[in-house]
Amino acid sequence: MRIRVVNPNTTRAMTETIEQCAKAVAGHGTLLDAVTSEMGPASIESHYDEALSVPGLLAAIRRGEQEGVEGYVIACFGDPGLDAARELACGPVIGIAEAAMQTASHLGRGFSVVTTLNRTVGSTEDLAQRYGMERFCRGVHACEIPVLALDTDPDARKIVTEACRAAAETDRSDAIVLGCAGMADLCSHIRDEIGVPVIDGVAAATLTVQSMLTLGVRKSGRGEFAMPPAKPYAGLLRPFGV
Amino acid sequence: MRIRVVNPNTTRAMTETIEQCAKAVAGHGTLLDAVTSEMGPASIESHYDEALSVPGLLAAIRRGEQEGVEGYVIACFGDPGLDAARELACGPVIGIAEAAMQTASHLGRGFSVVTTLNRTVGSTEDLAQRYGMERFCRGVHACEIPVLALDTDPDARKIVTEACRAAAETDRSDAIVLGCAGMADLCSHIRDEIGVPVIDGVAAATLTVQSMLTLGVRKSGRGEFAMPPAKPYAGLLRPFGV
Amino acid sequence: MRIRVVNPNTTRAMTETIEQCAKAVAGHGTLLDAVTSEMGPASIESHYDEALSVPGLLAAIRRGEQEGVEGYVIACFGDPGLDAARELACGPVIGIAEAAMQTASHLGRGFSVVTTLNRTVGSTEDLAQRYGMERFCRGVHACEIPVLALDTDPDARKIVTEACRAAAETDRSDAIVLGCAGMADLCSHIRDEIGVPVIDGVAAATLTVQSMLTLGVRKSGRGEFAMPPAKPYAGLLRPFGV
Amino acid sequence: MRIRVVNPNTTRAMTETIEQCAKAVAGHGTLLDAVTSEMGPASIESHYDEALSVPGLLAAIRRGEQEGVEGYVIACFGDPGLDAARELACGPVIGIAEAAMQTASHLGRGFSVVTTLNRTVGSTEDLAQRYGMERFCRGVHACEIPVLALDTDPDARKIVTEACRAAAETDRSDAIVLGCAGMADLCSHIRDEIGVPVIDGVAAATLTVQSMLTLGVRKSGRGEFAMPPAKPYAGLLRPFGV
Amino acid sequence: MRIRVVNPNTTRAMTETIEQCAKAVAGHGTLLDAVTSEMGPASIESHYDEALSVPGLLAAIRRGEQEGVEGYVIACFGDPGLDAARELACGPVIGIAEAAMQTASHLGRGFSVVTTLNRTVGSTEDLAQRYGMERFCRGVHACEIPVLALDTDPDARKIVTEACRAAAETDRSDAIVLGCAGMADLCSHIRDEIGVPVIDGVAAATLTVQSMLTLGVRKSGRGEFAMPPAKPYAGLLRPFGV
Amino acid sequence: MRIRVVNPNTTRAMTETIEQCAKAVAGHGTLLDAVTSEMGPASIESHYDEALSVPGLLAAIRRGEQEGVEGYVIACFGDPGLDAARELACGPVIGIAEAAMQTASHLGRGFSVVTTLNRTVGSTEDLAQRYGMERFCRGVHACEIPVLALDTDPDARKIVTEACRAAAETDRSDAIVLGCAGMADLCSHIRDEIGVPVIDGVAAATLTVQSMLTLGVRKSGRGEFAMPPAKPYAGLLRPFGV
Repeated sequence: MRIRVVNPNTTRAMTETIEQCAKAVAGHGTLLDAVTSEMGPASIESHYDEALSVPGLLAAIRRGEQEGVEGYVIACFGDPGLDAARELACGPVIGIAEAAMQTASHLGRGFSVVTTLNRTVGSTEDLAQRYGMERFCRGVHACEIPVLALDTDPDARKIVTEACRAAAETDRSDAIVLGCAGMADLCSHIRDEIGVPVIDGVAAATLTVQSMLTLGVRKSGRGEFAMPPAKPYAGLLRPFGV
Repeated sequence: MRIRVVNPNTTRAMTETIEQCAKAVAGHGTLLDAVTSEMGPASIESHYDEALSVPGLLAAIRRGEQEGVEGYVIACFGDPGLDAARELACGPVIGIAEAAMQTASHLGRGFSVVTTLNRTVGSTEDLAQRYGMERFCRGVHACEIPVLALDTDPDARKIVTEACRAAAETDRSDAIVLGCAGMADLCSHIRDEIGVPVIDGVAAATLTVQSMLTLGVRKSGRGEFAMPPAKPYAGLLRPFGV
Repeated sequence: MRIRVVNPNTTRAMTETIEQCAKAVAGHGTLLDAVTSEMGPASIESHYDEALSVPGLLAAIRRGEQEGVEGYVIACFGDPGLDAARELACGPVIGIAEAAMQTASHLGRGFSVVTTLNRTVGSTEDLAQRYGMERFCRGVHACEIPVLALDTDPDARKIVTEACRAAAETDRSDAIVLGCAGMADLCSHIRDEIGVPVIDGVAAATLTVQSMLTLGVRKSGRGEFAMPPAKPYAGLLRPFGV
Repeated sequence: MRIRVVNPNTTRAMTETIEQCAKAVAGHGTLLDAVTSEMGPASIESHYDEALSVPGLLAAIRRGEQEGVEGYVIACFGDPGLDAARELACGPVIGIAEAAMQTASHLGRGFSVVTTLNRTVGSTEDLAQRYGMERFCRGVHACEIPVLALDTDPDARKIVTEACRAAAETDRSDAIVLGCAGMADLCSHIRDEIGVPVIDGVAAATLTVQSMLTLGVRKSGRGEFAMPPAKPYAGLLRPFGV
Repeated sequence: MRIRVVNPNTTRAMTETIEQCAKAVAGHGTLLDAVTSEMGPASIESHYDEALSVPGLLAAIRRGEQEGVEGYVIACFGDPGLDAARELACGPVIGIAEAAMQTASHLGRGFSVVTTLNRTVGSTEDLAQRYGMERFCRGVHACEIPVLALDTDPDARKIVTEACRAAAETDRSDAIVLGCAGMADLCSHIRDEIGVPVIDGVAAATLTVQSMLTLGVRKSGRGEFAMPPAKPYAGLLRPFGV
Repeated sequence: MRIRVVNPNTTRAMTETIEQCAKAVAGHGTLLDAVTSEMGPASIESHYDEALSVPGLLAAIRRGEQEGVEGYVIACFGDPGLDAARELACGPVIGIAEAAMQTASHLGRGFSVVTTLNRTVGSTEDLAQRYGMERFCRGVHACEIPVLALDTDPDARKIVTEACRAAAETDRSDAIVLGCAGMADLCSHIRDEIGVPVIDGVAAATLTVQSMLTLGVRKSGRGEFAMPPAKPYAGLLRPFGV
């Protein structure tokens, strides 16, 4: 089983953290690696960043298909490019938001999401609706720390932990979902501190991909998610066409 | 990791099939067994049957907790007693309907469910709504075979396969979800026949429990799903009280 | 017209209160009695209690059918076993939550529910959704008094009254729905105190059953709510089978 | 208990039929009469008709309040003027659509509505949504008979009966709701013919008003449904102002 | 292009303000006038007022059709009589609430509505649902100023401005929608004061009608919105019939 | 008023058609031009194409901002990159799907969308939900003509016309929405042929932008749609960063 975790931002240090968290949960028979996107933003904190992370992500999926990768995790909580990636890949492609939210839905009546910047709250609510998780998502809370500061700001761990504690209290939630791949390594620390289940999407999505490969399910190859029709592409993106 | 699959009907032959399907996907470090409920109906085909399968299921969960079981699968597509079981258990309890529907939601825009009797169609629609899977569930179809006839009727395999093929066509679905634990052993056969992904909830739920144990998440112990308050029980059900 | 109110917990004192409230509203031609379940929990305060109240409730319905009862009220605000009871009975079976919520929906834009323990809030929200009353249900509030303490705690009446007053204010509601059969006898007292309509489900459901009998409607006998198929039952619940 | 049924169209013959159907279900202590609106359309078959039936209806409510009427039924399936009538009246005002749909919701998973003209189908769907009955309303079907022809067309009874039979079959419904007050007298005939429960809103609403009076609930007198503020009215409608 | 703005209350001074706001945005080729309803309430502040404003509105539409008017604005935020007016008119009829809400939906994730009296909040929420704007409408806030006092109360401008500022803050909205035609002339003042986009429905609806006329779309003339069937009307409303 | 229509595919011939349709409705004071994206797919017919059309679209928006453009139309029915474009632009950015659907919503109870390929049906349903147009969108129908064949296939006009006729019939719709910018020039032809209103999104969106500029509304500059934070971009997309 070959699984690849794609970090769709271009910050390699973050990919390393993500890879460790994914490997920590992968099963014995699973070959897992993580790759960094080769084009796009250093971090994803706006609709603009997210839109422009997608070409790099799709290039990584195309390369993965050539290399025999069987399943993919998209390691950004906006799940950028998920539908397009599913067109390209033969096996499962799972976003960390969908995996984290679904996992949290099994833990009780509802969860809270704790994310980085306030400007991403609306997108997270959109994702909850898209995945049918609206009725479980009791609130989305920002701690106003930029993505890359999660690693460099000495207070980040404390601020995120307190935001999680406050969210669980305010929303009367049964679980916390971490709203950024860059928070993956904080997961067990926060869980221990606040006494409420905390879900990191990188780990959750890795296990979801692994489960789908174990079940042997692959997309049907017809309809909306069939391979996209070949056609000319122009400009910088010409390499994406045929 | 100790996982127990509980068959909430009282037909042992069905438990054996279920156990094989669950073991076929469980990971190397997982100790998995399946148990048959000790009280209740021989099969679950009505609201009445389902309601009366719950005491036996809950007895099985209570015994599991005493024996150190860490996670449970409820192996009936109505997910009977799920909320009550979650109050009793410290670890994850997953129904096969929720696991199958969530897994199928990753395979495209929507799935069809193929179930046994027409009278269970409404309940399945309720479950789709409960789990936020309404927008993915494009149709529920009965093949009008009683649960226990799945094993004994020589035409069952063919009838179920054709019902799955027709459902995928009618609903323009990206996947089929098998709507009865008794169909678990037909899964790969149907998939090969119809060329569309087919999800068996027993396998899907087993992997979901295993993933949750790997993630180390346990319910928070407070709120709606805390252990129920101890109190007297009367009559036949006195053993369930304190 | 023979109507039976079934108290699905096993506390006879509560049945007496319920019977009085039901009889106070029943019409002249109506023969009404209330029965106490013979098996299950002394009070219903968890998913576990509720699940285990159902066999006793269903036994009471079966006996009622033999005795010529024409319609039933399920006198617990969780409406336990409603679908299964409808399979067994030829005439109407009404839960007190559905009757109370529908009645309250005629009084303006929305109502608040005041219930006993916090852990039942989620179930009440589920019921509002199930009955299509989501858009009318503006809030569910617990007063953290256990069911049986409603009768014994000298402060209970005051605490419930104040919870109702606060709920109407906070939610800007047009009516209060009492979220427990054990509050039935407080109804007129609270209404007088807070100056807002207050609905007790026992009375509302009794009148709903009576109205349905007057209309002469009986279930169609086919489809999802037809009599459940006969089959063997095992263990303690063997008497429920055939 | 004084209940008044208001026929908001100006056809007296239809009021007589309605009055008979209402009286047939009213309890012994209930004084019930039916009145015909004094201004507006001869029948209600468009948004235009419905809008213009409201002043006459409101005049009838105002007169009722002066005469000590305690509760009202609005006997047109569009429930015209319901909110405005609730502002004017101290006691309950119930539309026949809301009463019929809620009653039908207790009979199983869903109902079909059979109405007169195709152009009223959309309004009926709106009402189902407004009352939270969307999930129970499985279809709305027109039989393309104008309202007043229900009484005069010799084939009307047969056409409506067959439309009801077909609707129950197509929608797999557990009950039929008659979508016009002018069908009230066909109710038991159709029920006998098709073997499915049939609900007439005139009878259902009469019983709902009677139940609310028995419960002693009256609107709170504050907020959205308080008496409208007095103010000048101009033109033909000057008599409606102060 | 002939567009008519109908003020459905009978206060001429308000019509003048409305006309100015509409003319300020109309294009060069557009002939626009505003008319005052000839019957009904001096202002619309209740369900009762709204219901009784409709006959005057419909009379104005009928006269407009005779005079060759091509499109209409209904200049009251309750959008009274919209469906009936659409039956009568051949060209577009647009309510100021639908136009304002749709325009605001393009400005970000959501808007707040600031209205006059608290008792109109519920109706505004209904309109948001009717137009599919529920997910954009983040809150409806009353400033408790009667409609006609908007012009006469020297503090009105300040109170409305502060209510708008507070609403944007509380709801974290991207725009404010003014919830009364009588606020039309405050629009640019408030926008300048609070630094958030503010939408006046009179201007928005005028532009929407003008756009629809430019597109050349007219209703299809069949189905629900076809001309209502001719029939006798009685009493004061006899002139509305045939 | 300077409005720019951006064709996010790279086929110049299509831009010319689009520009003509937009200019045909623009007002006298409006300076309108249309530009072709400089990078990306020749047509947009998959999630993959759509995702990769966004960088070219965003480059066009950035250039427009430098050139003093005040408002934008995104001329592809998937409304690609809408949220990101709104972050970049100071004035309104409108997608042709949102404008067409909202315009159609004023024409009655609901509309049908007729699109090119079957594989885009799901995305169109997603857009209807996103814009709150779910309740108006009665069906999405594909005519299975590739985007670029709309111009070259001699049967295209006939096939699309017949698909529109059939959609209106099947869905009982009050209007047709053309689901592709490449159909813009067919709009009046189809309307004349089928006798039902037909909406082209290019014209509808041009008028919506023009109306918003007339109203003088601009985004608030704070919150989710504020200018995205500046940051490094890598690879082919480096020019997009700072």
